[in-house]
Amino acid sequence: MQKQPLLLTTGEPAGIGMDVVLILAQENKLQGFGRPIWVTADAEAMQARAEQLIAAGVLQSCPSWQIVDAQAEATDFVEAVAQQSGEDASANTNDFILLDVPCGAPVIAGQIDINNAIMVAQQLEIAHKLAVTHNVAAIVTGPLQKSALIDADIKLLDGTMFSGHTEFFMQQSGCDKVVMMLANQAMKVALVTTHLALRDVPAAITKDNVRQTVQIVLDDMQSKFGLKNPRILVCGLNPHAGEGGHLGMEEIDIINPVLQEFIVKGADISEAMPADTLFTPRHLSDCDAVIAMFHDQGLPVLKSHGFGDTVNLTLGLPYIRTSVDHGTALDLAGRGDASATSLYQALVMADEMASKALAD
Amino acid sequence: MQKQPLLLTTGEPAGIGMDVVLILAQENKLQGFGRPIWVTADAEAMQARAEQLIAAGVLQSCPSWQIVDAQAEATDFVEAVAQQSGEDASANTNDFILLDVPCGAPVIAGQIDINNAIMVAQQLEIAHKLAVTHNVAAIVTGPLQKSALIDADIKLLDGTMFSGHTEFFMQQSGCDKVVMMLANQAMKVALVTTHLALRDVPAAITKDNVRQTVQIVLDDMQSKFGLKNPRILVCGLNPHAGEGGHLGMEEIDIINPVLQEFIVKGADISEAMPADTLFTPRHLSDCDAVIAMFHDQGLPVLKSHGFGDTVNLTLGLPYIRTSVDHGTALDLAGRGDASATSLYQALVMADEMASKALAD
Repeated sequence: MQKQPLLLTTGEPAGIGMDVVLILAQENKLQGFGRPIWVTADAEAMQARAEQLIAAGVLQSCPSWQIVDAQAEATDFVEAVAQQSGEDASANTNDFILLDVPCGAPVIAGQIDINNAIMVAQQLEIAHKLAVTHNVAAIVTGPLQKSALIDADIKLLDGTMFSGHTEFFMQQSGCDKVVMMLANQAMKVALVTTHLALRDVPAAITKDNVRQTVQIVLDDMQSKFGLKNPRILVCGLNPHAGEGGHLGMEEIDIINPVLQEFIVKGADISEAMPADTLFTPRHLSDCDAVIAMFHDQGLPVLKSHGFGDTVNLTLGLPYIRTSVDHGTALDLAGRGDASATSLYQALVMADEMASKALAD
Repeated sequence: MQKQPLLLTTGEPAGIGMDVVLILAQENKLQGFGRPIWVTADAEAMQARAEQLIAAGVLQSCPSWQIVDAQAEATDFVEAVAQQSGEDASANTNDFILLDVPCGAPVIAGQIDINNAIMVAQQLEIAHKLAVTHNVAAIVTGPLQKSALIDADIKLLDGTMFSGHTEFFMQQSGCDKVVMMLANQAMKVALVTTHLALRDVPAAITKDNVRQTVQIVLDDMQSKFGLKNPRILVCGLNPHAGEGGHLGMEEIDIINPVLQEFIVKGADISEAMPADTLFTPRHLSDCDAVIAMFHDQGLPVLKSHGFGDTVNLTLGLPYIRTSVDHGTALDLAGRGDASATSLYQALVMADEMASKALAD
């Protein structure tokens, strides 16, 4: 039986999302997964971008794709894709299946048009529907432009504003809390707090927040990485993990009591550890993931060991979602200067997780 | 002319300070610098420790040293060392010169005796005197036991308590501010704040503190590393360096205005940069040192790239001071299980700095 597809959203059409898909297709990197690759994009814009990249000398020829109307109802649509792509993967010689999501305004590489923000939201809506119904194995998201979404003022069904991938998927899935994890070959790091001013971090390290984060990491390391009893190491909030209370009390008052709750239930998780010894080979080789308390405690060390290879994951959603770790790079769109490494790594991670999750 | 000596303090006699000196002597690693190595220790305790390590099978034979009475007045003492060690380095076949600082109580490996705390302070007093008078090129400090010093309640000349190396050298040198820098082959990282609870960090990021730190780093990269125009990169306090004020205002209100003062005066220093992109090869290869705002922003990434090789430096003193990055390891003393790697790296760094500082 053919393996389930990976769904790739190209995101903002004026950015490099389509460019990096075309570059991977030319390098034959989309066909190596043994899975169909489904790509959401405007079909005309994709054709135009391919021609731009051919003119720029980056593509030798136009990659091949098969267009499916993504505006159909989800069930019909899945059936249509299944019929058109055939049950047998070997019969499909296209580089990818293009789920056509038409833009509201003409696409010009490098120039944001807020009339196209709705099309970005539609891509994510399709992605969510296909993932939550198990018609795709994972979602891999290309970059969107937050400022364009905010300027376009798109309201979601619940009245909240459409402001980004994670918020959208949370709202659609009914999740109160998700966890950002970054991963590369060297390590996996999940964060208790993410994009928060440093002075607001200590107040955000609550028992509830630590408990929810640990639970999501444990659950997803099992369900999405196929690890029966994942080994997790946790950073303290303070230097030297507070040094017994001399350098801060959060480890004693908040973090360790929560970690003890999990330890007594049999989870293989550490108490709060000094961050400057945790990220050394001896400890890293002994764990499946690290939980850091805040952004600049975990991400500088992770990215220093493989910046271009780093993949962004969202844990806590009812499906696998990976993401590129770069933005729209508007100045590079249509020129062929964009690097497709991050997208490729996001696909590799999604594929690996999908295989392990299925195996469980 | 013979190069100036390096002065090595063995610190707490019950700890591994003497062990690691003896191990380096046996490995012939003290003689490769082309400089005399002067070691402060209790001569009888050193002899006993050597015999313990021979019995443990770690030393094949007793390293050779020449004993000089370190209790003499500094000038006489230096003359005595010069006479005894000879002007010609090649004539000296000893592994090191031992500056004898007698202990107040018998030394038992692994057992702290607070009657020996005063001898630890005397070692540092000798080191300071020799360094400030340019009779040694640099001080390299072995580990001491802070708790023993505090229990012994030793008062310094100004009435303050003796609590550690850095405080002692600051007090002796009349320095209000020094900067902790950690260095290994991968990078050099200086810290604006060091051992401070995370919730107290934002309030400590003042214009004065940032300004003094930058000035000391710039001065010492010139005077102690021989760099005419050092290139320094500086982390912001907040994730993404505050992202234009969306994730904190300290970069706009405090850090960047101070950095601009230095930039307009011609210093080669960055504005506040996101820590999670700064520590990548592209940026690290383009600078001589990094300034991080707090402990867990800079040290996890540094130690992840060479934990055993990391050397601790104190910038802002009137002399070069490096240090091992481990503690007294009481349970390993006298057994031969201690690693001398950190001490060796501290000697290598002190020697390199001494050579570059002299060349300037």
